[in-house]
Amino acid sequence: MKLVFPGSFDPITKGHLDIALRGAKLAGTVIIAVFDNPAKRTLFTVDERLRLMSEAIAEVSVDTVRFEFDSFNGLLAEYVRKNSVTAIIRGLRSPSDFEAELPYSIHNRNLSGGVDTLYFASDPEYSHISSSIVKEIASHAIGNGFGAEELVSLVPGCVFEALKKKYSKKVEG
Amino acid sequence: MKLVFPGSFDPITKGHLDIALRGAKLAGTVIIAVFDNPAKRTLFTVDERLRLMSEAIAEVSVDTVRFEFDSFNGLLAEYVRKNSVTAIIRGLRSPSDFEAELPYSIHNRNLSGGVDTLYFASDPEYSHISSSIVKEIASHAIGNGFGAEELVSLVPGCVFEALKKKYSKKVEG
Amino acid sequence: MKLVFPGSFDPITKGHLDIALRGAKLAGTVIIAVFDNPAKRTLFTVDERLRLMSEAIAEVSVDTVRFEFDSFNGLLAEYVRKNSVTAIIRGLRSPSDFEAELPYSIHNRNLSGGVDTLYFASDPEYSHISSSIVKEIASHAIGNGFGAEELVSLVPGCVFEALKKKYSKKVEG
Amino acid sequence: MKLVFPGSFDPITKGHLDIALRGAKLAGTVIIAVFDNPAKRTLFTVDERLRLMSEAIAEVSVDTVRFEFDSFNGLLAEYVRKNSVTAIIRGLRSPSDFEAELPYSIHNRNLSGGVDTLYFASDPEYSHISSSIVKEIASHAIGNGFGAEELVSLVPGCVFEALKKKYSKKVEG
Amino acid sequence: MKLVFPGSFDPITKGHLDIALRGAKLAGTVIIAVFDNPAKRTLFTVDERLRLMSEAIAEVSVDTVRFEFDSFNGLLAEYVRKNSVTAIIRGLRSPSDFEAELPYSIHNRNLSGGVDTLYFASDPEYSHISSSIVKEIASHAIGNGFGAEELVSLVPGCVFEALKKKYSKKVEG
Amino acid sequence: MKLVFPGSFDPITKGHLDIALRGAKLAGTVIIAVFDNPAKRTLFTVDERLRLMSEAIAEVSVDTVRFEFDSFNGLLAEYVRKNSVTAIIRGLRSPSDFEAELPYSIHNRNLSGGVDTLYFASDPEYSHISSSIVKEIASHAIGNGFGAEELVSLVPGCVFEALKKKYSKKVEG
Repeated sequence: MKLVFPGSFDPITKGHLDIALRGAKLAGTVIIAVFDNPAKRTLFTVDERLRLMSEAIAEVSVDTVRFEFDSFNGLLAEYVRKNSVTAIIRGLRSPSDFEAELPYSIHNRNLSGGVDTLYFASDPEYSHISSSIVKEIASHAIGNGFGAEELVSLVPGCVFEALKKKYSKKVEG
Repeated sequence: MKLVFPGSFDPITKGHLDIALRGAKLAGTVIIAVFDNPAKRTLFTVDERLRLMSEAIAEVSVDTVRFEFDSFNGLLAEYVRKNSVTAIIRGLRSPSDFEAELPYSIHNRNLSGGVDTLYFASDPEYSHISSSIVKEIASHAIGNGFGAEELVSLVPGCVFEALKKKYSKKVEG
Repeated sequence: MKLVFPGSFDPITKGHLDIALRGAKLAGTVIIAVFDNPAKRTLFTVDERLRLMSEAIAEVSVDTVRFEFDSFNGLLAEYVRKNSVTAIIRGLRSPSDFEAELPYSIHNRNLSGGVDTLYFASDPEYSHISSSIVKEIASHAIGNGFGAEELVSLVPGCVFEALKKKYSKKVEG
Repeated sequence: MKLVFPGSFDPITKGHLDIALRGAKLAGTVIIAVFDNPAKRTLFTVDERLRLMSEAIAEVSVDTVRFEFDSFNGLLAEYVRKNSVTAIIRGLRSPSDFEAELPYSIHNRNLSGGVDTLYFASDPEYSHISSSIVKEIASHAIGNGFGAEELVSLVPGCVFEALKKKYSKKVEG
Repeated sequence: MKLVFPGSFDPITKGHLDIALRGAKLAGTVIIAVFDNPAKRTLFTVDERLRLMSEAIAEVSVDTVRFEFDSFNGLLAEYVRKNSVTAIIRGLRSPSDFEAELPYSIHNRNLSGGVDTLYFASDPEYSHISSSIVKEIASHAIGNGFGAEELVSLVPGCVFEALKKKYSKKVEG
Repeated sequence: MKLVFPGSFDPITKGHLDIALRGAKLAGTVIIAVFDNPAKRTLFTVDERLRLMSEAIAEVSVDTVRFEFDSFNGLLAEYVRKNSVTAIIRGLRSPSDFEAELPYSIHNRNLSGGVDTLYFASDPEYSHISSSIVKEIASHAIGNGFGAEELVSLVPGCVFEALKKKYSKKVEG
């Protein structure tokens, strides 16, 4: 069984990581696939995001052989078909997450010839985390020594270091 | 991989059936497990529900060997542990379904030592179906020859026949 | 054009009344139809509810000829077909009202041969009103002279008087 | 009775079309009115959208005389008053659609002197469709021969052809 | 400032306890007030619930002098007025909690002459806890030595002991 | 007790004003704090917004000494700590407001060392008001003498005058 966990992962959070690990308990392979969307400005490049994802998995799993890291542009359903994926996995943090996901689940099933999306309910410990809030906190907190403890609870260690570099540069520049 | 699909199934609908079939595309075994809750009045007995489930699967799947039918009382998490279940599956028809499911997903994971619930987004064709509305329609429609076409779109053939018997008896009695 | 506004109306509130009046701006006839559900215990009998609805309309509309008052048991869709209703009307106070209504809208359309439900967004002045909260307040407030002003803002005058009678009797008995 | 069905319709989908047809069962005239919002970038010009709407209606209705096609900028309520509209119609696909619509329903009623919005619950067959997802699929699918079947299930034939032209041009250009 | 935290508390959970403690950081006095609703069957009597609340507070707070324990029947607004309460406090675990609370917030403000309800967002650690799920787990788990660890994470120590007594009796009887 | 009511207030509405006044019934000081977000284009400058807030309060309260007006950039939690704020206050108009607020409530509590957010349920009279709809109506209505009455019901008098100036200039310019 091969699962794909698609997302922007800009950057990967502890919430994403938890979903990836829960997926890996079910399947031989979990591909974490960065959506490379040229229309969307991101903080980290696709390459940086791939590297952070791989480092983040290495921080928490001894079973890193089960994870693959990839990027895609275009439709997820096309990626799913080309890579013979069994199912897509996603986390749901809130009812509005479900409302946003529902149409995609249907379109992806239709477009991929029946490949389903399996939803995990987010762990309560992580359900308030989003990449955008992480960046919001990091952009204000790093530089004046505020919020480091909170950030460490939201993202893997490698991401915390990457955020520090990113935002110190911005402050300097 | 062994999945369990728990529910009251009073009676099983085309919506339930769809989730069971989607589960069976992922796993060698799907146990459809009737929750035998003595505190809740049901239209069909546990035995009737088990028989209808098995007949309903036979109507739509050539791969019936993948399905098992069982009942449980007590906690789902206990059943899950005793039967070495890999994951629980459930369908989500609406955001409020997700809100109702979320706490159970967390408790079941904690109580079972980490067994996850995988949620499928209901197929739009079935997302308006519930066992309680089926019974509401059947109780009023059967007997005066109204609504048969709608019922046939909501439940498997064997359930339609069972509803007819149940509610003609009620009318007679 | 003939609209039906179905409900339990136990008792009719200012919120219900507002929907009925808004319906009457669109159609020659609005039937306010009490759902006579023997399985549900109500405070007022069907006859009392019909009388209160008619008096409530008379309090606010000079155009009472546009309103009819009726009761039904069984399926709304059957009533709709027998009475050549153009459309059903309902108010929506909240997203969860919509979630509860959605399956019924679909079933009613299928069962009635295409008769639609038209939803009005509740007026903000009335969106916190429900018959059950009205009864909860009345049962505690009437008798100790508390809450009369609030009740008058929630229900038509005739209903306020009926609640007073109902709950003084209960206190006495 | 004259209804207006306002929207961006960039482009019109089968979901929009279904609401327009359901409106036309109630009223002598349904104006499908494109909101010409200069602040929003669209794929199709207002003129293209008007032409597609008219062609889409001709594909599905023999009763095309009941439909008018128009555009407006500024407030919908002003359009409603100038054109003596009886009511506005809109479809609701989800609870969050209702949450987004609710304030507009109130403002439009206040601004127009009491003109109501009538909401239809989307047909389940169309409730996962949105113009933005249509464009997302079309932009990736057309050009590499993927997803044509899905697109045909989402939009009228004329829109499918228009999307093909639009996105082949983009690929070429 | 005097706050009231009303509820059924059948029994008090760690989620309730958290709201009470957060209230006590704002006010000199927090009254935890059991709603004594004769129409609702409860597991614990009002007296048992009052005792458990007081013991639960003593387990976690050194500042027990700030808490009072009381019961009320009738309308909360009447209690609020008689006891010169500054504000009501409640926790929100989910959007549907908010939907259920909203009408009560309005009625209580109107009925009490302007006393507001202050809502706290539940701590993620506790947002999946409800008294009814606690009882469901306890009723099945206690007696066969299952789920003790989970229950200890959901309720104060004194409640865990009380649940054990309650459900062993039930098993014996 | 010192409360902070943070927001964009571009411009302040009657809904905001109501929350500020309800906060002032609980606390000696309510700071209305404009979020000065350089990444977001606003209609009014921070200085204009501060002036309008202060004038709006003066229109409705005799107790203006309880209100302070301030702006902040960066994280709200940092502002809260520097200014020894007791609690943050916010209004909730809908379930989706709650969904959007929930993660911020948690992050702010963590980042500030335990400062809570107290939510008020919006008064029904104001729950359909948002600054963005106010600007949408004003931009279209002012200039052609439409919608003045509605605007006056949505915003304080001083804001209505400011909107008139702003949008006449835009029309002229």
